[in-house]
Amino acid sequence: MRHPRDGRRRVAVGSVAPQVDDGRFPVKRTVGDLVVVEADVFADGHDEIAAALRYRHEADPDWRETPMRALGNDRWSGTFAVPDIGTYRYSVVGWIDRFASWHGAFAKKLEAGQDVRMELKVGARLVARSARRADRDATRLGSFANRMRGRRLDDAIAAAMDPDLSPLMAENAERSNATELPWPLAVVVERERARSGAWYELFPRSTATEPGRHGTLNDVIARLPDVAALGFDVLYLPPIHPIGRINRKGRNNGQVAAPDDVGSPWAIGAEEGGHTSVHPELGTLRDVERLIAAAKEKGLEIALDLAFQCAPDHPWVREHPEWFYRLPDGSIRFAENPPKRYEDIYPLQFDTPAWRALWDALLEVVTFWIDRGVRIFRVDNPHTKPFAFWEWLIAEVHREHPDVVFLAEAFTRPKVMNRLAKLGFTQSYTYFTWRRTKAELVDYFTELTTPPTIDFFRANAWPNTPDILPDQLQTGDPRVFAIRLVLASTLAANYGIYGPAFELCEHVPILAGAEEYRDSEKYEIRRWDLAEAGPLRDLIAIVNRIRHEHRALQRDDTLTFHAVDNPELLAYSKRSADGSDVVLVVVNLDARWKQSGWISLDLAAMGLDEAATFTVRDLLADRKYDWQGGSQFVELRPDRGPAHLFSVEGPWREARP
Amino acid sequence: MRHPRDGRRRVAVGSVAPQVDDGRFPVKRTVGDLVVVEADVFADGHDEIAAALRYRHEADPDWRETPMRALGNDRWSGTFAVPDIGTYRYSVVGWIDRFASWHGAFAKKLEAGQDVRMELKVGARLVARSARRADRDATRLGSFANRMRGRRLDDAIAAAMDPDLSPLMAENAERSNATELPWPLAVVVERERARSGAWYELFPRSTATEPGRHGTLNDVIARLPDVAALGFDVLYLPPIHPIGRINRKGRNNGQVAAPDDVGSPWAIGAEEGGHTSVHPELGTLRDVERLIAAAKEKGLEIALDLAFQCAPDHPWVREHPEWFYRLPDGSIRFAENPPKRYEDIYPLQFDTPAWRALWDALLEVVTFWIDRGVRIFRVDNPHTKPFAFWEWLIAEVHREHPDVVFLAEAFTRPKVMNRLAKLGFTQSYTYFTWRRTKAELVDYFTELTTPPTIDFFRANAWPNTPDILPDQLQTGDPRVFAIRLVLASTLAANYGIYGPAFELCEHVPILAGAEEYRDSEKYEIRRWDLAEAGPLRDLIAIVNRIRHEHRALQRDDTLTFHAVDNPELLAYSKRSADGSDVVLVVVNLDARWKQSGWISLDLAAMGLDEAATFTVRDLLADRKYDWQGGSQFVELRPDRGPAHLFSVEGPWREARP
Repeated sequence: MRHPRDGRRRVAVGSVAPQVDDGRFPVKRTVGDLVVVEADVFADGHDEIAAALRYRHEADPDWRETPMRALGNDRWSGTFAVPDIGTYRYSVVGWIDRFASWHGAFAKKLEAGQDVRMELKVGARLVARSARRADRDATRLGSFANRMRGRRLDDAIAAAMDPDLSPLMAENAERSNATELPWPLAVVVERERARSGAWYELFPRSTATEPGRHGTLNDVIARLPDVAALGFDVLYLPPIHPIGRINRKGRNNGQVAAPDDVGSPWAIGAEEGGHTSVHPELGTLRDVERLIAAAKEKGLEIALDLAFQCAPDHPWVREHPEWFYRLPDGSIRFAENPPKRYEDIYPLQFDTPAWRALWDALLEVVTFWIDRGVRIFRVDNPHTKPFAFWEWLIAEVHREHPDVVFLAEAFTRPKVMNRLAKLGFTQSYTYFTWRRTKAELVDYFTELTTPPTIDFFRANAWPNTPDILPDQLQTGDPRVFAIRLVLASTLAANYGIYGPAFELCEHVPILAGAEEYRDSEKYEIRRWDLAEAGPLRDLIAIVNRIRHEHRALQRDDTLTFHAVDNPELLAYSKRSADGSDVVLVVVNLDARWKQSGWISLDLAAMGLDEAATFTVRDLLADRKYDWQGGSQFVELRPDRGPAHLFSVEGPWREARP
Repeated sequence: MRHPRDGRRRVAVGSVAPQVDDGRFPVKRTVGDLVVVEADVFADGHDEIAAALRYRHEADPDWRETPMRALGNDRWSGTFAVPDIGTYRYSVVGWIDRFASWHGAFAKKLEAGQDVRMELKVGARLVARSARRADRDATRLGSFANRMRGRRLDDAIAAAMDPDLSPLMAENAERSNATELPWPLAVVVERERARSGAWYELFPRSTATEPGRHGTLNDVIARLPDVAALGFDVLYLPPIHPIGRINRKGRNNGQVAAPDDVGSPWAIGAEEGGHTSVHPELGTLRDVERLIAAAKEKGLEIALDLAFQCAPDHPWVREHPEWFYRLPDGSIRFAENPPKRYEDIYPLQFDTPAWRALWDALLEVVTFWIDRGVRIFRVDNPHTKPFAFWEWLIAEVHREHPDVVFLAEAFTRPKVMNRLAKLGFTQSYTYFTWRRTKAELVDYFTELTTPPTIDFFRANAWPNTPDILPDQLQTGDPRVFAIRLVLASTLAANYGIYGPAFELCEHVPILAGAEEYRDSEKYEIRRWDLAEAGPLRDLIAIVNRIRHEHRALQRDDTLTFHAVDNPELLAYSKRSADGSDVVLVVVNLDARWKQSGWISLDLAAMGLDEAATFTVRDLLADRKYDWQGGSQFVELRPDRGPAHLFSVEGPWREARP
């Protein structure tokens, strides 16, 4: 009869939270977070057990340990801080606490007036064993053991009940039959920008101040003060590389380009170069570096686009035809979604027999831009490239540069989007663009901000993108734009707009029923008159300022929806990790009519006492109210703004960790 | 740059259901079941994918395979049958279906009138490759490839669109980069008695027909016709071994036994022998074998008790003192729960340094009784012995005897009870004994009969046991006993009663507020006058007959609760796996007053059409009703019985698998 190897391990450890796909992928956190770990830890019988949380930063060879405490129902909890960027490992270990078990029984017998002389000997035996195992505490433990074995019963009992003994025994517990998770779990800790930031997207070629001229990176530098004044954190540029000439698309995605048509920036590569070259009309590599430096001075980061595909005249097509799918006649297959054809794009064949060389070349593209100072990448259509490729590429980059942020532009099926987030993308575009009713927003953001999703998926919410003019914005009503802005910027700690199309309420689709912009910047240079932007521009600046001033809005894991008895009113709050900053938002989803109703506030979720009187200050209207209790009346008139954005001021129910 | 080993595997496979603790433990099923497996299977991009379910019985070296079908949202489903007892393994594999992807695009281009000549060459290349790989189908595939490459465009197209080609290509799919689960999952398939059975517990020593005599196994044999007439499937006997004399307990758990006190059967072992001996006053080993044979003739199985503990005069105490916990003075510690002391019991020390020898001895106890024909064991207090011990012991037994059933008598914390079920116990006692209100019963049985619990935990519901006289039964009201009987026997496919205490409505506790019986059979011989049992006895016989006649009541996984607008009325249905047998139960939880209300039937869960008129036949009252629609009025009067027990007769909405 074969016996189990660990037949004397009596403790079961499992059901650890957080974890992603049973530990296959790491949990995500940002620097300064506390990681709260829970686990089931239990054993047969009635012995006392103890559990500890073990953790270490990947750069630290030694495990640290912190005790876990029992929550009831065999659930245990422990916490560790993640002050540094990089990967931490964590594990849970549980063991029978023989001394605590003995001590509990001893105390009960003592209380019942039973003869405890034999029990003292049993306890002394445990203490003496610990003394032999102990290092620093050997002498003290030995002395306790001797007293417990002494002739004077009262002193022996006093020694056993000495409040110093139990912690000393816990410190030197017998753990040879402890049970630990079969393998440690991982948490990837990223910088704060991973958790929160406001993004602004613009096409550099449309930034010239004079009509008719192709904008340059220098024009973008000139625009930086304005983008900074609007309060954005990240300026994202579509691809800045040479644009293919073969099969170039014309305006409005026309099949044939006119001689002066500029083509799509996503048709990357021409005789001037490929993914590591700069479009000559935009400027030079040196200009990119100057732009990055100038942005930094304004508190902005530049995000570049990673679009891993090639125009037919990309140098790789000639140099590495083996990286593309070749037809039986030797020609290369262009992109298509039959019967649609995208003749200006050659997809890369990620599972080509030469995949290793291709993957290396793509990694070199990323490190090339990292070496020029880029730390944020928006990744174009990652869902059309293999999961294994991204998992490898992001891990390779993060090994040297854990501060690099990757935003996944995957508007696809939920499980594919989730997989990309799990395998390493820092942030992800979302379905927010199409979620508009109260029920849709509550359902979707509840999913995004609770486990399991919150542990691997960081939402970046966009009301529009160059590819998506949602029908709600096609009314052109600035009040709808304002609603969408407030929702994006306060529901999601990461959000962005594609401007100036957004501030200027650009709203005409290419065709009725379509989501593409007419005269899209994707295919032509546009000139935007920023002076025409009305109060929407001010609202953007105010909301971004509030986001900077209120840490509550810089995280998603505390989002709480509050019931309102009106389907057009959406109410939610967020609070900072320490609980000292709380923001309550009430949005009128109806751009046309006044709406009012009663909110039933979840006061506990905001850290408020049921009975307390508390103050809410409307940061948009600069008004202040004293409220008592969770039932409050609110009214919003579209002509006065889309929302209440309340800063909630205590008194708080209790101090938070 | 290190590349992943499997960089060309594009398909992700995961989130498989059913599985228990991520595959750490097997799923449970019984012979004849269909195992429905679901999994997430998806890839990057827009290629078609295919997935298959692989499975094999442990005795079969070859894997079988059945295709899975897409359910939407990247979820796939497949089914395999488990006709044989033992362990099956199953796994999910997914791959890019290159031919289906090509074929879909080809058909669209054809429909759009595009030039498909190059596409035909691409397709022919795929077919030719499959022909080279194929065995049986090589010629047919080669011929298709040739036609697709042929000069006549119409014939080439006809070949590509030939309905025989796609299945042929699916059969010979290129799967070198397929993705499979990292390790297979397991399902333990047990015999039908694991899934369903009615248990009757009695104390053999109380079966003498003459007053004052110690009952024997021969008396039990004489009782078999009666137990069979009541419709039970399993007759469970408390321990039948010699009872210790040292520190024997007296009547009503008295500290000191009188000379004629018989002691507790759970204080196992005396000079006559231990766990493999028979109490001389009950009979001999030969009598046990005769009892088993006689029971079999009546359609009954005998279940014995495994109580792994020893009386102080058990032979092991002398032969193997190293299997017990010894105090510093060399004596053995008796069982206790301070300040309570159980001096008639020595617990075994399962993690003694000599644990391997102890475990082997305990396994030998089990195989000893298996060799005498026992196939069902009720295990006493398994939660006070290590999980690893049970997992090992049950696996060792099942290797040779997969038909052995183990019932875990663990009334303890939920996670401990679940762990015992996961690690191998066939069935488990439940909290049913203390669940009485509608909300309690709905919550608890919903948990028990839905994943994850239904996949590892088989409930065995008891209204009473020798240890538990719940306060509800302390009224002695036969109508309460009837309610509890109907609930246990129809909510749970496995149920049992401790009789004759149950039929005779024994109801006096040892103390007010206690759950122990006064004059408990655990400590003395009782004489029961079976003739005194009233209509409750008839109800038991009827309910057990209905359970045998209605396969719907022989499984728990189809339990569905139906809303009733009266908190005292509980309605639920069950159906057989093939859907042809449906039973609807309506119980009046109020033993005193008439209750009526409207049920809102979940017709779909019963397999009925919303519009159909269907017939329900009350199997207790022998009345028949024609109902239409899901809203039905019911009324129950306590004086006429505790419940409606309807057999639902179609017409069924559709044929079931």
